[in-house]
Amino acid sequence: MVDSSDQRRGSPSANGVWGNQASVLVGDYLFSRAFQMMVSDGDMAMLKLMSDVTNALAEGEVLQLSRTFHLEMTESECLEVIERKTAVLFKAASEVGAHAADQSAETVATMAEYGMCLGVAFQLMDDALDYLVEAEQAGKPVGHDLEEGKITLPLIHAMQRDAVLAAKVEEISERGCYEEGDREWVRERVTAQDGTGCAMDRAKDYAERAKRLLPETAEVEVRNLLAELADFSAHRPY
Amino acid sequence: MVDSSDQRRGSPSANGVWGNQASVLVGDYLFSRAFQMMVSDGDMAMLKLMSDVTNALAEGEVLQLSRTFHLEMTESECLEVIERKTAVLFKAASEVGAHAADQSAETVATMAEYGMCLGVAFQLMDDALDYLVEAEQAGKPVGHDLEEGKITLPLIHAMQRDAVLAAKVEEISERGCYEEGDREWVRERVTAQDGTGCAMDRAKDYAERAKRLLPETAEVEVRNLLAELADFSAHRPY
Repeated sequence: MVDSSDQRRGSPSANGVWGNQASVLVGDYLFSRAFQMMVSDGDMAMLKLMSDVTNALAEGEVLQLSRTFHLEMTESECLEVIERKTAVLFKAASEVGAHAADQSAETVATMAEYGMCLGVAFQLMDDALDYLVEAEQAGKPVGHDLEEGKITLPLIHAMQRDAVLAAKVEEISERGCYEEGDREWVRERVTAQDGTGCAMDRAKDYAERAKRLLPETAEVEVRNLLAELADFSAHRPY
Repeated sequence: MVDSSDQRRGSPSANGVWGNQASVLVGDYLFSRAFQMMVSDGDMAMLKLMSDVTNALAEGEVLQLSRTFHLEMTESECLEVIERKTAVLFKAASEVGAHAADQSAETVATMAEYGMCLGVAFQLMDDALDYLVEAEQAGKPVGHDLEEGKITLPLIHAMQRDAVLAAKVEEISERGCYEEGDREWVRERVTAQDGTGCAMDRAKDYAERAKRLLPETAEVEVRNLLAELADFSAHRPY
């Protein structure tokens, strides 16, 4: 709903099927129900972790929103948004798993870092795929990020190399929407300047970092699964 | 945002000013921030109370949504929706106050009941005012409840007495929206059949019940303030 998209990862989105009203209300229900279940479980450390991450995520989304059409966005600001609006969720998921399995404080911290790297890799690929894949394959409209004013790494990288592209993006930003042909034109330029390749390379770096973090002492089967997950997030085709 | 209204109690609504996206995200932020603060306070009883009430509220809103244009709604179903989507919030507010002030379990339970009655009175007045006051005075569009398919007590009461009104409401329900003149016509019929008077009388009953619940042992000043609050909720002109 937040990105007004009728599709989400290949399936119809909730707001597309049931409208905004039901989606907001049922979303609130799921959120509050999750907290209710955690409270009845009574693990204060878990509650702290999960209330911190939901708050960080909400902050991250607001941060991204405040950066709408912020054309001066640097690569490091871009990574900050990614960490705060996406990667903290992956971080919390990994951390909670280790905590619930009664692992040592050191393992919990390591798994938190693994999740953070996994999340950054995942989001960087997402940002690249928005300029790369065909709509049918993506399961959502492509070239949608810029349309919503989201300045992501592939675009930042390409704009640094291509003044014509930068001028065009400024024009789109001032108008606030695409004109006919803009979507395809921008997409070709971003790909031609290897903005997408740059984001994918960074995604692979983060995935490798995630894999190196996996504790030597972990069971081989578990290690392999977590390593595969990191690989998938940086190599997925959709 | 849930009722797609540009105004809320006389002021521009958040979604009216900043749009849906910012409103959802900042709403999520405030919700998660509140939980984060409660977790850091560390009072498990408070956490249970607040996670229960937020979940009940979300359920109540979904319940109301599932009753959209449910013309067979009875008065008791209507009161159930009111309790679950509004009154539980008032209940929790009163209960938390007593709990935080280290009152006895008996006083906490009594104050919870006071809050419940206060909330029902408040909502019944809200439902009456939707058919009664002028838009400028209400600070939001009037006759909006039926437009959104909300079947409230004034309408239920009036439809039981007025077959022509009932037929008209069925027609509006099938069409899913007002035609020109419908809003004023329905409003006049509901007022003429004293649907609004009936809802206001019920509101006053609940307010009186709330006042009777106030502990004899409470400080006079506090008792008076809480009694005034109950009176206001059932006598307010807007």
